[in-house]
Amino acid sequence: MTVLTTDFEQPTMDDYPTRKSTEPALLYRKDPVVWGGDEGPIDQGTLHGFEENGYLQDEELITPAELEKYREELRRLSLDEELKRDERVVVERKSDEVRSVFEVHTISEVFADLVRDPRVVGRARQILGSDVYVHQSRVNYKPGFTGTDFYWHSDFETWHAEDGMPRMRAVSISIALTDNYPHNGALMIMPGSHRTFVSCVGETPEDHYRASLKSQEIGTPDQNSLSILAEKHGIDVLTGPAGGAIMFDSNCMHGSNGNITPFPRSNIFIVFNSVENTCTEPFAASSPRPGFLGSRDFTPVK
Amino acid sequence: MTVLTTDFEQPTMDDYPTRKSTEPALLYRKDPVVWGGDEGPIDQGTLHGFEENGYLQDEELITPAELEKYREELRRLSLDEELKRDERVVVERKSDEVRSVFEVHTISEVFADLVRDPRVVGRARQILGSDVYVHQSRVNYKPGFTGTDFYWHSDFETWHAEDGMPRMRAVSISIALTDNYPHNGALMIMPGSHRTFVSCVGETPEDHYRASLKSQEIGTPDQNSLSILAEKHGIDVLTGPAGGAIMFDSNCMHGSNGNITPFPRSNIFIVFNSVENTCTEPFAASSPRPGFLGSRDFTPVK
Repeated sequence: MTVLTTDFEQPTMDDYPTRKSTEPALLYRKDPVVWGGDEGPIDQGTLHGFEENGYLQDEELITPAELEKYREELRRLSLDEELKRDERVVVERKSDEVRSVFEVHTISEVFADLVRDPRVVGRARQILGSDVYVHQSRVNYKPGFTGTDFYWHSDFETWHAEDGMPRMRAVSISIALTDNYPHNGALMIMPGSHRTFVSCVGETPEDHYRASLKSQEIGTPDQNSLSILAEKHGIDVLTGPAGGAIMFDSNCMHGSNGNITPFPRSNIFIVFNSVENTCTEPFAASSPRPGFLGSRDFTPVK
Repeated sequence: MTVLTTDFEQPTMDDYPTRKSTEPALLYRKDPVVWGGDEGPIDQGTLHGFEENGYLQDEELITPAELEKYREELRRLSLDEELKRDERVVVERKSDEVRSVFEVHTISEVFADLVRDPRVVGRARQILGSDVYVHQSRVNYKPGFTGTDFYWHSDFETWHAEDGMPRMRAVSISIALTDNYPHNGALMIMPGSHRTFVSCVGETPEDHYRASLKSQEIGTPDQNSLSILAEKHGIDVLTGPAGGAIMFDSNCMHGSNGNITPFPRSNIFIVFNSVENTCTEPFAASSPRPGFLGSRDFTPVK
C-alpha cells in the first residue's frame, strides 16, 4: 500500500552546491551581506561600503602601543620550541621558521583579549546581526624575498564544502602588524564578487586540509569564472599601515601575489561566524576539518 | 737585467668587480647617468627625474593605432610555428606557448621600424649622449593566472660580467602593449639605486645564460644589500596604460612580483648601448653570451 503524505523528511536543498559537478558555475548569493547594522562601532557609510564591496578598511584599529604588544607576542610565539611541535603551528620545513599559528586565541591570552575587544568582536556582531563565535583564528608570518602567492578563492566555498557552514553569515578580520604596500603581497579583493558564488569542480579527497594548507587545488575557481569576475569588478589592492584592519565577507573572491621585496608581512586573522549559522555536516566532504581550522565549539564570544 | 719603465701594459682596473669575491659589496657608481641631455624629445624636467630616480615614464609613447599594429605583430609572431624552433624564441614547455622572442628587431620589420623611430632611439641618444646600437631586443608575453616573479637584479651586472659591457652607459626602454596595474606583476624599481653597484658573489658557470633565462642565481644580489637599498630608496611600482613606456638606467635595481590576476602583460623591450661603450671580453665569464642576448654587432641605429 502506498500512502500519500507531505509529512516526509524534505531533503535539504543546497543553495551553494560545489565540488559536485564537472562544470563550474556562477550562482547568485542568496543571503544578506549585512545582517545587523544599527548598533556597533561601524558608521553607516562604511557599513554601506561593506555591503557594496564586500569589505571595509580601518586605517587605525589598534594604537601604536597595542601594535608593539602584539608584535612582541608574535615574536614570543614564533620562538616557542614546544609550540613548533603542535599540529596548530605551520613551520616551513626548509628554514624551520614559523609561518602560521592557528587557534591563536586559545593559545595566547594576549590574542584572546584582542578577540573579545569591542572594537573587534563588536564590528563582527554589527555586520552579522547576532552573537558570534570564532570559526578560525591565526597569526601569519610572511617573510620578505620569498613570500609565495595565495591563489584566488572564496573562504565560504571551503567552509561550506569542508566545514559544513550553511550560509554566508561569517566575516573575517585581518589586523596588520606590518605595513601593507602595493608591492609586498597585499591582499587583493575583487570588490562586489561576494554577491556571486563560484561553484567549483572536483571532489574533496580525504584529509584534504593537509595539502590545502600549502596550496589549494580542489575548491579552486576556474580561470573563466575568475576572468568574468575580474572584468566585471576589477581588483582592489588593499594597502595600509600596520595597526590598520580589513574586514571582509566570507564569500569575497580574494588572493595575494608573491612578495620578492625585503618587506615581510604579518597579521592576525580572525573569522567570526554567527551563532545562528553554526556548522553542520560538510556539504562536500566526508568529514569536517579539525577544530583548529573550522571550530566545532560554538560558544559565543562574550 | 731589470729595466724600470712606465711604458708597460697597465692591467685594466675594473670599476665594477662582481662574481669574484665571496663577500658582496656596495660600490659607488663611477659613471654619469645622463651623458647627453641638450637635444632630443625628453624635456629637461623629465630628464632630471631620470638622473635622480634612474627611470622615466611616458604615459603615451605610441598612438592607439600603433598599439593595435604592434599587438597584431605580437600575435603573428606567437603563432609562427617555424619561429618556435628558433633559439631566440623562449617557449614554455608545459603549454608550448611563446614567452619571449629575442632579437625581435631583426626578426620583424614592424619592430625594426619601431627601434628606428625618433621617439624611441631619439630618447636613447639623448640620455646616452652619442649614437647608439641595440644590445638586446625582445617582446615578452606574460600570461595571467600563472605569471612568475622576476627577482631583483641590475641588468648592468649581467651585461658587465657576461657580455663585457665596460661602463654604465646603456638604457632600456619597455613599451607596454597591455595595461600595467599594481596587481599584475608590474615592474618595480628602487628609485635611486642606479647610483650603487651591488657586487655579487659566485662564479659564472659555462653557458650560464641557458639557466638564467629561467631563473637567475649567480649574479643575484644578496638579501642584506637589497634590504639596505630598499630601506634607503623605497620601491616604486611602475603602473601605466598600454602604449606608455618606461626608460630605465642599466644599473637600476629592479624586479617584478608574480601575477595571479587574469590580466596578462606584454611589452616590447629594447636595450640601447652607446657606440662609445661597445662590449669587450666579459669581465666575469669565460666567453660572451650569444649575440641575441648581448649583441656583438655595434652598428649604430640610423
